[in-house]
Amino acid sequence: MYHLENKLIFAKEIIKEAGAFIKESLSKTITVEEKTAFDDLVTNIDKQTQDLLVARIKSSFPSDNIFAEENGLVHNIKDGNVWVLDPIDGTVNFIVQQDNFCVMIAYYEEGQGKFGLIYNVMADQLFYGGGQFDVYCNDKLLPAYKNRPLDRCLVASNGAMYAKNFHGLKDLIDKTLGVRVYGGAGLSMSKVLSGQILAYFSVIYPWDYAAASIMGEKLGYHLETITGEPLDYFSRQAVMLVPKDRLEEIKHIMGSEN
Amino acid sequence: MYHLENKLIFAKEIIKEAGAFIKESLSKTITVEEKTAFDDLVTNIDKQTQDLLVARIKSSFPSDNIFAEENGLVHNIKDGNVWVLDPIDGTVNFIVQQDNFCVMIAYYEEGQGKFGLIYNVMADQLFYGGGQFDVYCNDKLLPAYKNRPLDRCLVASNGAMYAKNFHGLKDLIDKTLGVRVYGGAGLSMSKVLSGQILAYFSVIYPWDYAAASIMGEKLGYHLETITGEPLDYFSRQAVMLVPKDRLEEIKHIMGSEN
Repeated sequence: MYHLENKLIFAKEIIKEAGAFIKESLSKTITVEEKTAFDDLVTNIDKQTQDLLVARIKSSFPSDNIFAEENGLVHNIKDGNVWVLDPIDGTVNFIVQQDNFCVMIAYYEEGQGKFGLIYNVMADQLFYGGGQFDVYCNDKLLPAYKNRPLDRCLVASNGAMYAKNFHGLKDLIDKTLGVRVYGGAGLSMSKVLSGQILAYFSVIYPWDYAAASIMGEKLGYHLETITGEPLDYFSRQAVMLVPKDRLEEIKHIMGSEN
Repeated sequence: MYHLENKLIFAKEIIKEAGAFIKESLSKTITVEEKTAFDDLVTNIDKQTQDLLVARIKSSFPSDNIFAEENGLVHNIKDGNVWVLDPIDGTVNFIVQQDNFCVMIAYYEEGQGKFGLIYNVMADQLFYGGGQFDVYCNDKLLPAYKNRPLDRCLVASNGAMYAKNFHGLKDLIDKTLGVRVYGGAGLSMSKVLSGQILAYFSVIYPWDYAAASIMGEKLGYHLETITGEPLDYFSRQAVMLVPKDRLEEIKHIMGSEN
């Protein structure tokens, strides 16, 4: 218990350090590289921020392991103590807008999510908690999900999945007040946690969803794949973060009830 | 000249007053009504905010006219001195998120846009200027549009128009780093003015686009209909706010060159 509290305090420290480092970098020249396509980008700042986080973790907890977006650090989440890191989530927003990006950290022990953190750097909003901890945004305790009818809610999504009605996603969204596309899993899912968005749908990696999944469970949300196969906590999968109380209704509308 | 400077100072005052009024209302019960459909909403706060703006304008400039979203105040923009008002742009965001909405004011004399203002209430960001005035966001002078390749830019859009590839809009967006859907014309177009978004596409009324159009002209942007007919400054039309330097390229990709 005490051990975990200290680790969460430590995580809050290093995520703020990472944010300060990124903010400082905005006044410098940022080097952009393409990964798999012209719109799959990484910068030197993503990598340097991850290096900073990894160094801090390894220095304080030498036997802990890392599963992270850059540089091939992909320790099995189910094995031992594992820190899941996304140094800059919303890299395109970071490059083009210099805003609307997040740093994310999740911490697992033997595959059990212990806590998660999402730091919206430019808004200086830190979401943290989950597991044995209540979930906060900065100093504000976040309430659990409260039921509201679909037609009084907004949904956030990957734009392309919405446009192609992936597994009935547009059919679902057409029953709500509409879609929002923010360009980052961390930003979108933090709006789910704070109650501004009902649910989020995208094709993402564990470092994109781990922190929100842990915090979400605490607040009455559930993360699972859209297509029904198990979450593998390794590859890129189509996932949704939705209120548990709405899960059956959402699956039914999306035509995947079975 | 002096006359217009005073009017702009006055407009900055009343838009901040309107913002403060809306912010205060967030702690009270908000009454929501449907206009034309379940997702076309108005609140008592939209109406009260507009009443506040109209009363302030009529008290200071009794012979000026109003063209506004609520209560049927639709004086012809081309006739005399006309204040164009949108008391809450992004009403759905206001209701669901209590964030991400704007107050907008534009001022015309005999059909000539003299200045515009967009106030993002919760972010406390006031965009103002255009016509003879430079354009600012709060105290920061906004630079004119600087050329960047399409594949290094983001585009904001109405979600449904993007999904149905309205006049080739998705074809255009597929050549960029992607779409963002923010749920408000004011919010989206303020991000165009600040350089975070290349262009904005939606089906909107004059009170949604007048302020951004006037400020945009000053910064190298142009607002026109997507489908080629003239802007009527009265009805709801499909419009785009795009950099002048990119207009022909964008029209070409959208298949409407002629």
